[in-house]
Amino acid sequence: VPDEVDQNLRSDARDNRDRIVEVARAAFAADGLDVPIREIARRANVGVATVYRRFPTKEALLTAAFADRLAVCLRIVEEGLAATDPGAAFRAVIEQLMAVHAQDRGFARAITSQFPQVYDFTKGRDRTLTGVHDLLRRAQRAGAVRADVRLGDVILALMANEGIRAEPAELRVAASRRFAALILASFRPGPDAVALPPAVRLPLPIRG
Amino acid sequence: VPDEVDQNLRSDARDNRDRIVEVARAAFAADGLDVPIREIARRANVGVATVYRRFPTKEALLTAAFADRLAVCLRIVEEGLAATDPGAAFRAVIEQLMAVHAQDRGFARAITSQFPQVYDFTKGRDRTLTGVHDLLRRAQRAGAVRADVRLGDVILALMANEGIRAEPAELRVAASRRFAALILASFRPGPDAVALPPAVRLPLPIRG
Repeated sequence: VPDEVDQNLRSDARDNRDRIVEVARAAFAADGLDVPIREIARRANVGVATVYRRFPTKEALLTAAFADRLAVCLRIVEEGLAATDPGAAFRAVIEQLMAVHAQDRGFARAITSQFPQVYDFTKGRDRTLTGVHDLLRRAQRAGAVRADVRLGDVILALMANEGIRAEPAELRVAASRRFAALILASFRPGPDAVALPPAVRLPLPIRG
Repeated sequence: VPDEVDQNLRSDARDNRDRIVEVARAAFAADGLDVPIREIARRANVGVATVYRRFPTKEALLTAAFADRLAVCLRIVEEGLAATDPGAAFRAVIEQLMAVHAQDRGFARAITSQFPQVYDFTKGRDRTLTGVHDLLRRAQRAGAVRADVRLGDVILALMANEGIRAEPAELRVAASRRFAALILASFRPGPDAVALPPAVRLPLPIRG
């Protein structure tokens, strides 16, 4: 029954692809984005040629590994943009983004890196950051965030969140939740707010 | 003149030692604490045996590489403990520690890591953190820092500071200055302060 054989082959191929992506995600989280393709092939128990057939470049593999997380981040931002209370929406989005980043350190690293220019990934990141920027401005107009907070401060906070290295992931997520609350407290306006030193423009490839 | 020859030899040896320490410091800052001894020997342009003669273990080399920075941190804390205004002292110490950490990412990583147990280094770190803890409690008693801030939050902030990856070092230091101001703003008490989620005890080998 050739059709069945063909289907099995395709099913095997899909399993291979899924396993490579899963192994890559774990490898990037544990050991950084520099893990070589041959090491990922070794851990996935497939040949290097198999990896290259599915992912012609390291960038393609990185993009595939982080596609789900990126979609989650976009959904978080979209839900925030659809919410009615600008202060609460900004707050919830920052908390949730930091939680996603704390869960997957490889993704967190990719999102704040000079990531190799891959269209889908950088487009997704730009949309996320543009949305966060909108949410920040709305929260500021509503008086829920101090006026001198910049998008660069949010990026700084996301980068800083990445510095939290506790293991296992649950401890890191709990630490990150505490950190998010501190950062959001620092963004609150108040009559006795202290002036901040100059904002810093971090050289991420972002628009807006 | 044997004395002169001897002196030249000793002078060469000292130059070697200084160069190894300097190269190690730069390597740890750029590439993390896992840089192998043989790679440091290569970059310092000396044999591996020469490195091992001066530093029998990687721990000894790490300790030597970070001795100066650790002394700076201890001095910062001691000056803080000698100051009269508890709120200003705590603030100045956090700002200065974060600046030192931002200048040398290898040191920052070492100070918040499960650093190999090396007596001088861990003793110095413990003294620094014990001093920071004293400064925190004094600032809280003076009403300058909210009562629910824990030493763990300061450690969290130092770890987070390490996540800031901008280059060159001057940009990183500027970003870190802004970050320190935000964290210190989050520590300020106020009638409208929002409750924080539970503090997290990070598993550093610290006392107090």
